[in-house]
Amino acid sequence: MNEFTLIKKFFAAQGLQRDDVNCGIGDDAAILTPPPGHQLAMTTDTLVSGVHFPTTTSAYDIGYKSLAVNLSDLAAMGATPAWVLLSITLPKVDQQWIEAFCDGFFTLANRYQTQLVGGDLTHADQLSITVQATGWLPQQQALLRSQAKTNDLIYVSGTLGDAALGLTVVQNKQTLSSAATDEILIKLNRPEPRVSLGQRLLNIATAAIDVSDGLGADLGHILEESNKGAIVYVDRLPLSPSVKESLTPEEAIHLALTGGDDYELCFTIPPNKQADLEQQLADIDCAHTCIGVITEKSGLDLQYQNGNPYHGTALGYRHF
Amino acid sequence: MNEFTLIKKFFAAQGLQRDDVNCGIGDDAAILTPPPGHQLAMTTDTLVSGVHFPTTTSAYDIGYKSLAVNLSDLAAMGATPAWVLLSITLPKVDQQWIEAFCDGFFTLANRYQTQLVGGDLTHADQLSITVQATGWLPQQQALLRSQAKTNDLIYVSGTLGDAALGLTVVQNKQTLSSAATDEILIKLNRPEPRVSLGQRLLNIATAAIDVSDGLGADLGHILEESNKGAIVYVDRLPLSPSVKESLTPEEAIHLALTGGDDYELCFTIPPNKQADLEQQLADIDCAHTCIGVITEKSGLDLQYQNGNPYHGTALGYRHF
Repeated sequence: MNEFTLIKKFFAAQGLQRDDVNCGIGDDAAILTPPPGHQLAMTTDTLVSGVHFPTTTSAYDIGYKSLAVNLSDLAAMGATPAWVLLSITLPKVDQQWIEAFCDGFFTLANRYQTQLVGGDLTHADQLSITVQATGWLPQQQALLRSQAKTNDLIYVSGTLGDAALGLTVVQNKQTLSSAATDEILIKLNRPEPRVSLGQRLLNIATAAIDVSDGLGADLGHILEESNKGAIVYVDRLPLSPSVKESLTPEEAIHLALTGGDDYELCFTIPPNKQADLEQQLADIDCAHTCIGVITEKSGLDLQYQNGNPYHGTALGYRHF
Repeated sequence: MNEFTLIKKFFAAQGLQRDDVNCGIGDDAAILTPPPGHQLAMTTDTLVSGVHFPTTTSAYDIGYKSLAVNLSDLAAMGATPAWVLLSITLPKVDQQWIEAFCDGFFTLANRYQTQLVGGDLTHADQLSITVQATGWLPQQQALLRSQAKTNDLIYVSGTLGDAALGLTVVQNKQTLSSAATDEILIKLNRPEPRVSLGQRLLNIATAAIDVSDGLGADLGHILEESNKGAIVYVDRLPLSPSVKESLTPEEAIHLALTGGDDYELCFTIPPNKQADLEQQLADIDCAHTCIGVITEKSGLDLQYQNGNPYHGTALGYRHF
């Protein structure tokens, strides 16, 4: 099978068909009709085998996760996902692998009514996936990193540190109970992009980011872009039962602050919008925890609720 | 320097700033305003070192070409380029290399008023570049592969086989005159995307594709999607002086039919549109040659103008 036959067999015939896709896979470019009166949100992320996921990761999980991390970026802007492009570089053609990859990819794509409209399939020594995702937004409502204000409350969705704990399990550095292992590996390999949450935050949140490199690093981007600082209470960081039962409190806090790959949203809201937030999130199943407050004074001040300082690091993953 | 500092230093501060880019590099996603009443064209292409370009290719040329091949896809739809995303996987950080890469990339981006609005910089063993380009089109005017009609005339822009000849020179399989070498290497490393040509073909051409895998293979896509056949006169294939002086006529035809990477446009027009075509192209410097005709009968019929059949192959490059 050459790349054209592979694309036809596995990619062109799958998934839902959106009305706004005028020409999908199979021409030089996709032709799409953007919704009138909206802005577009566009993002791209590359996952490299052995760098972004362990080489033992299943094809299904690679397919799922390569899309999930991009939908997470759209979620962090409050955007509604619409179209994706997919570039795969493969060391060799393994139809069973491609089939399982597509299963994971299209399962998530269909869940968010997102259509694959084009891409690229090439040969390389190292497996690598680049997804580009486009969504849209009502005019001027995007959740930027730069608009956090002094005294805004800082929230984070879900729980933190699970994916990082999962990685230690995959790397055989840690053994957990069977139930904890299952829960943790799902968080590592199949993160749920917080699309509904992002949409509900429009008109409420002042800033948002997804937690991909670790809370400390990602909140740091909000602080830098907004030219603010923050106090974060480390004993408020939301932790899953698996993390709590497997780690000491100190280890758990360290992982929650520095562990990447959680794909939760960290966002800020004005203090008088707490009731609006609860109302907006009442009918979606998305835990959210207030972990601190934005300050005029720059820097990330990590402390316990009793006022004692936290002395650990908040640095996240860096590529170079 | 970590990836954030590198992105700020080399990518975020460069190039032109378009009014329709509301939020560019530096957030979770770019925020863009699409032009009212238009369709979008979106494409992506990956270039892998040692696969899509020789490992000796200069950083400038890699930067230039990774964008050029994507603008070429937009040109083949008749689209006007607007925004690009850039994903780079690098084996190591070499600031001099990145600077030269950016020089090539932004030289071409600025030429076509295209803004880099986001991307990704990651670590991997093999150098690989994925560009995603978005352009726009008047409603319902995209140049699809599927709309060629029987008796349409088949045209190709520029000359064919130059890039393939250039590759043999880079691989030390061939030695040319100094002037020919210069001309040929420019065609290999810095192809000019036929953006103006594509735009002028709106309302004239019935189908179009860019020649990336070889004329035979790429025209084959038009024939397959349009459910037609073609007669192509191999002694009408446009050849550069460098190709003519370096190869026998038979070798030149073979290269023109099968050589990839020329990034010329192959397009079809109704026979009564020849005068319109000449008028539209009068003020742009773009050679174009009628090489054959679309037939009701399927298959690609390669022959000389005197009616003798051509017995060589027309198969192009395939990844798997």
